[in-house]
Amino acid sequence: MGSSLEPAKLARIVVPMFADEPNVEHQLRNGAHSKLLAGVAAQDDCAAYELTGKQILVFGSDYVRGPKFSLYERSHLSNYDIGWYLAGANLSDIAAMGAQPIGLLSVIRYPKDLDDSEFTEILAGIRDCCASVGAANVGGDIGTAERIILSASAFGSTEPDGLLLRSGARPGQIVVVSGPTGIAGSAMQFFASDDRDPDSAPDIAPGLNRWRRVAPRTSHGRLFSRLSGVTACVDTSDGLAGALGALCAASNVGVDIYAESVPLDPVVLKASDELAATPLELAFGDSVDFELVATVDADTLDQLVREAQMLALPLFAIGEVTATGQASLVAHGQRAALPGAPWVNAT
Amino acid sequence: MGSSLEPAKLARIVVPMFADEPNVEHQLRNGAHSKLLAGVAAQDDCAAYELTGKQILVFGSDYVRGPKFSLYERSHLSNYDIGWYLAGANLSDIAAMGAQPIGLLSVIRYPKDLDDSEFTEILAGIRDCCASVGAANVGGDIGTAERIILSASAFGSTEPDGLLLRSGARPGQIVVVSGPTGIAGSAMQFFASDDRDPDSAPDIAPGLNRWRRVAPRTSHGRLFSRLSGVTACVDTSDGLAGALGALCAASNVGVDIYAESVPLDPVVLKASDELAATPLELAFGDSVDFELVATVDADTLDQLVREAQMLALPLFAIGEVTATGQASLVAHGQRAALPGAPWVNAT
Repeated sequence: MGSSLEPAKLARIVVPMFADEPNVEHQLRNGAHSKLLAGVAAQDDCAAYELTGKQILVFGSDYVRGPKFSLYERSHLSNYDIGWYLAGANLSDIAAMGAQPIGLLSVIRYPKDLDDSEFTEILAGIRDCCASVGAANVGGDIGTAERIILSASAFGSTEPDGLLLRSGARPGQIVVVSGPTGIAGSAMQFFASDDRDPDSAPDIAPGLNRWRRVAPRTSHGRLFSRLSGVTACVDTSDGLAGALGALCAASNVGVDIYAESVPLDPVVLKASDELAATPLELAFGDSVDFELVATVDADTLDQLVREAQMLALPLFAIGEVTATGQASLVAHGQRAALPGAPWVNAT
Repeated sequence: MGSSLEPAKLARIVVPMFADEPNVEHQLRNGAHSKLLAGVAAQDDCAAYELTGKQILVFGSDYVRGPKFSLYERSHLSNYDIGWYLAGANLSDIAAMGAQPIGLLSVIRYPKDLDDSEFTEILAGIRDCCASVGAANVGGDIGTAERIILSASAFGSTEPDGLLLRSGARPGQIVVVSGPTGIAGSAMQFFASDDRDPDSAPDIAPGLNRWRRVAPRTSHGRLFSRLSGVTACVDTSDGLAGALGALCAASNVGVDIYAESVPLDPVVLKASDELAATPLELAFGDSVDFELVATVDADTLDQLVREAQMLALPLFAIGEVTATGQASLVAHGQRAALPGAPWVNAT
């Protein structure tokens, strides 16, 4: 934990809430091991874990703010939801490396007039999202600020041969995605700009749940990590086009994505009717669905599909890795640029 | 790295600056090992390290803002200085656990009108502070916000028997501190409230250097970690009284600090003449000197002092651990509460 914890809230809320530290202990396929020694309740300068054996540690940070908060400001997301979102966005980065999430540090800054109950809800959302993937919120930094500021860092562990980088894609591989994309973005576009009531749009409202309960694709990540024929992975936190672009840039390859293979969720189809966007534009555009995109050798695809089915994990083959250097959409035999505006930072 | 990196600044500034990833590789006393595999230049979802052998990983987060930034707003701290401060404040938490710092993730949010050169200076300060203790800035999250927001997470590693918790103090031990305290706080009080020119106060101006070049006491931390008779440690990021209070609370002990043993820096003595505070009030009060306070068995003290001297590390024995449950100052044979206001969160 950071030293700049706000003492009163810490003693009153945080420590009691984490008094029974979860038993976070993970064993990797090679026998390497990690175990939580000291988390929030220890109230020390840092959290501590015991690690044994050879493993690759991954470590990432995401700040949550900006346009993503407009749904919160419009009351479409609760305090619990944004706590869950903060943890989920960070833990998704761990899943995208093929790693088992282990721990999270969260920075929560809040206005002086935030109720204890609201603060507790944020923290409960963080805690419950961590628990959903076997990790623990082990500390961080709390204190006041002129408005809500949320940031976190997550870490996880994988086997020495189990790390998935964006740079591992090779021409001839198949591109897979763990689920339909564009759902969160559709809900954002529909509900964030106008004063729309979710009750009045029951077909699009389920898209808000992607914001409320980010589900880091840890099981997909661990499966991808286990198969040596899966060699690259990235999450879709910047949208599907953004993920594919990052993959192409890092691996110095191109991709051909087949329009008819891209999974389209009913929310996306319905939102497309209401917004000035085609379903494919929504599916490829800026949307925080936190799915995973991976590339797999053609001769490993059958095994991957089979194992995913056994684990009841959705999986869609949507295209192939090329040597063109371009991320392209193929429809009716024609190549075009990917639709959908990539994510750009704006506040 | 977080996925929400601002793409343009990342390509233009950050990646070139970290293109030659430093060779960060550490071996612990028991042969356990860590090595950076993928940092900023990899531009992946996370940074990655290879870890081998049994080790304790520590992991902490500090957000930097609030009153600490008034010196920046008054131009007493440069962009480079606040970058260095961010890294130093976080790496100090690692030192306080007895660990070797390994890596840092930094969240840098900045107003749209921040020049590239100013952004580069912040990043250079972070990079150079990390390098000063053998760690590396390996990623994080950059993007815009309505004002500068800085947050970071650091991690480090220590031996299975080398972890120093706040809860390890035992009655009868000696309390040591790695250097004089109150220097940063004296400079803050003197320069942050009024429009004072450092040139006009050459005796107090050196206190600003404690803000500009936080020096995480990693060498002290590693020495404390190595000696089994040193059993507790905390940094003074909340001031000396705050550190001692935290130690007493976590260990369920008291301390008697001897007034005549508390090291007083010339900056503190001079500031005391100018401010309405005694030297001891300044030495114990809110001040981010990032020294380490540790407790050591009486029969290990000689060895600790000898080893510190050989390593040219300052060390001051300032009191002893008691069973009173109170942190007290002993002067002229009388016990009193510690002087100096402890740190409280305010923005």
